[in-house]
Amino acid sequence: MASDRPIAVGLLGLGVVGGGVARALADKAAAIEASVGRPVRLAAALVAHPRKRRSDVPAGLRITGEPSEILDDPAVDIVVEVIGGEEPAFGYIQRALHHGKHVVTANKEVMAKHGPEVLAHAAEHGVSIGFEGSVGAGIPIIGPLLRELAANEIGAVNAIINGTTNYMLTRMASDGLEYADALAAAQRLGYTEADPASDVDGDDAAYKLAILSSLAFRTTVRDTDVYREGIAKLAPADFAYAAELGYAIKLVAIAKRVGDLLQARVHPAFLPLAHPLAKVDGVYNAVELEGDLVDWAMFQGPGAGARPTTSAVLGDVISIAQAVAAGAPPARPPVLDRKLRIQPMADLETKYYLRLRASDRPGVMAQITRVLGDLRVSLASVIQKEVADAAGTAEIVITTHTAKESAVQEAVTKLAALDVVLEVSNLVRVEDPGS
Amino acid sequence: MASDRPIAVGLLGLGVVGGGVARALADKAAAIEASVGRPVRLAAALVAHPRKRRSDVPAGLRITGEPSEILDDPAVDIVVEVIGGEEPAFGYIQRALHHGKHVVTANKEVMAKHGPEVLAHAAEHGVSIGFEGSVGAGIPIIGPLLRELAANEIGAVNAIINGTTNYMLTRMASDGLEYADALAAAQRLGYTEADPASDVDGDDAAYKLAILSSLAFRTTVRDTDVYREGIAKLAPADFAYAAELGYAIKLVAIAKRVGDLLQARVHPAFLPLAHPLAKVDGVYNAVELEGDLVDWAMFQGPGAGARPTTSAVLGDVISIAQAVAAGAPPARPPVLDRKLRIQPMADLETKYYLRLRASDRPGVMAQITRVLGDLRVSLASVIQKEVADAAGTAEIVITTHTAKESAVQEAVTKLAALDVVLEVSNLVRVEDPGS
Repeated sequence: MASDRPIAVGLLGLGVVGGGVARALADKAAAIEASVGRPVRLAAALVAHPRKRRSDVPAGLRITGEPSEILDDPAVDIVVEVIGGEEPAFGYIQRALHHGKHVVTANKEVMAKHGPEVLAHAAEHGVSIGFEGSVGAGIPIIGPLLRELAANEIGAVNAIINGTTNYMLTRMASDGLEYADALAAAQRLGYTEADPASDVDGDDAAYKLAILSSLAFRTTVRDTDVYREGIAKLAPADFAYAAELGYAIKLVAIAKRVGDLLQARVHPAFLPLAHPLAKVDGVYNAVELEGDLVDWAMFQGPGAGARPTTSAVLGDVISIAQAVAAGAPPARPPVLDRKLRIQPMADLETKYYLRLRASDRPGVMAQITRVLGDLRVSLASVIQKEVADAAGTAEIVITTHTAKESAVQEAVTKLAALDVVLEVSNLVRVEDPGS
Repeated sequence: MASDRPIAVGLLGLGVVGGGVARALADKAAAIEASVGRPVRLAAALVAHPRKRRSDVPAGLRITGEPSEILDDPAVDIVVEVIGGEEPAFGYIQRALHHGKHVVTANKEVMAKHGPEVLAHAAEHGVSIGFEGSVGAGIPIIGPLLRELAANEIGAVNAIINGTTNYMLTRMASDGLEYADALAAAQRLGYTEADPASDVDGDDAAYKLAILSSLAFRTTVRDTDVYREGIAKLAPADFAYAAELGYAIKLVAIAKRVGDLLQARVHPAFLPLAHPLAKVDGVYNAVELEGDLVDWAMFQGPGAGARPTTSAVLGDVISIAQAVAAGAPPARPPVLDRKLRIQPMADLETKYYLRLRASDRPGVMAQITRVLGDLRVSLASVIQKEVADAAGTAEIVITTHTAKESAVQEAVTKLAALDVVLEVSNLVRVEDPGS
């Protein structure tokens, strides 16, 4: 039934993203009304400290510290959650759905940990849930997976989906920065939280990969299913050797179907310089999809920031508001019922880069290659360099042909135990996804 | 109201794309049913020669030469048009819409020439029209523009959207092929029609740019509004100079808003080698969007081929079938009512590359630079080379700073009239979109 009543949005959170959403809803009111066919108005915003002075929000915005004023208000049609973090965001989302409100969220942690419950809860109450902003900020990726690419069997998702670490790795590669200096630079630019652990340890990318791979493979991948390894062990020497060998170092997020098994992993990787993901620098993100019909498609854009996230959140708000205005039922939720087992990391087969320090004397290389050979890890290249600051010490860099992760890990343990090996400095996987 | 009746698809055209659609609908029946909630079945396919033997279509497919068996059959829910070309496709689409059928088409010519009428006709009859496959084959671009990026004011669309010419230009750049040999190579690989004019003259890219820019700028851009220039004048020498100067040569499709004016143009261009579009090679396509919220987003993938186009067509079929199954009203059509005037090409301001042959004697450069200077076209670089096969002849290559198109065109006319100038060999725009 047609109505001219404005569609009311309740906003949970008025931080960097929430402020952007509030301002854009006000600034773009006329264009949004033209798209939707009815006005879309911000009814109220929930904040932790309602009495704090705020300069950068639209005049007249009702601000409250009381969740029920939004979650339980029958006049609110769409709740936008941009608080972030697991709680209280998850509880608020479920309560809004329970009260028959459509929900738009940019919360990767909630969707990675509780996505199936949230989708089921929305379906049960006959409302829509939009979460385009939870992955890749403003890059359209969830919508295209669910709609334009829906006919494809997806074989792999290969992505760079953490802007902070991609910025840091880009600076380490281009300017030779140490890890700590790259982190400090990212913090100075506001690219990371006060506690950067979720970015640099790979948790943030793992959340996003769990969401993407659930949709891509129509199964349920929890964040805990995703193997993760952070970037803190990378040193300038690794970037120098990578360049010498023709690789870039990126924090990759790879989900790949191998029969009824699914690989889902986030870790640093050497990528050939010609690989599309190797060229994605700075805070940009990119998601590469392999599908049986489309073959290959790649989506790129800024992977973080208030305005790009606002782009995704408002895209969801407009789609849902159009459906509300048309009296349409909620979009059919994705069916995530395929039974795929997560492949144990020990069974992974890929190539490896190994950097170690050893005594620079005859017979050392023979001992090292014997350990690898006994475990059927075959060598693709070896670089040996004298270490300038330590008499009688050599740095040895090995790349392998395809080998089994369990064998390589065992080799690393055995190498570390050799008298002649002073340190196994780093082990990094060498990937060429899509090749 | 729930029903288990299969949703019936009528297929117009059983060529390369139509055959792919028919096979995929059969092969993927179970997965599509899981996505939609009801079976989706191919009811019949319309062909020009129904008695021709066909090996590569699903067994039992009903084939007809009579359009009314699909267009007038009340049992058909969705008509898929993959005949291509303006007529009879346009007439069939309108007739299907008139009979209350949803339509999915990959027809760029119909959508570029008659898009607004088709959209209005669909809205009038309460049905949906999907045309994701009309631009960029399987690359999701129309959906993201209409949905995920709907909150953005788009400032520019910069694209490589013709796979045939991009393949040819890639071969000319990498292998030094002449234009005719590159065309023959593309034809041998089946990348072009028997008559390649629509690809190499820029018409195909102009159709696609008209569609994209209508949606991006929410206005009506007709194919005839798009300036176009083909690639036939490009010679190996241009590629050699481009490489020497640090550029790639691409057939670009650029639509850019300048106040209330809109640039819409398809022509060869020099792009800096570091530009994202400069790295898109072979039959791949890429579309770059500049939006006020998202800043920048780029979509890449195969720009042609039966399977990628099938991916887009079936994505539309699945979305529409989901809406049919849910009893949802059709998607709200895009509102394309903004008044933007097309900027006359004469008013364009950009940089230029000019290659000409002149007498190799004193004073020639002075004459040439005087012509340019008088028209306020200032030089960025000059290369002068003796021509090996012609005594007393020099090849002169000039790049300019930003200048007005009308001034540059006048300069070319005046240069061609100089006694000392034997030939103005080529004039190519030098672009750096997004910079």
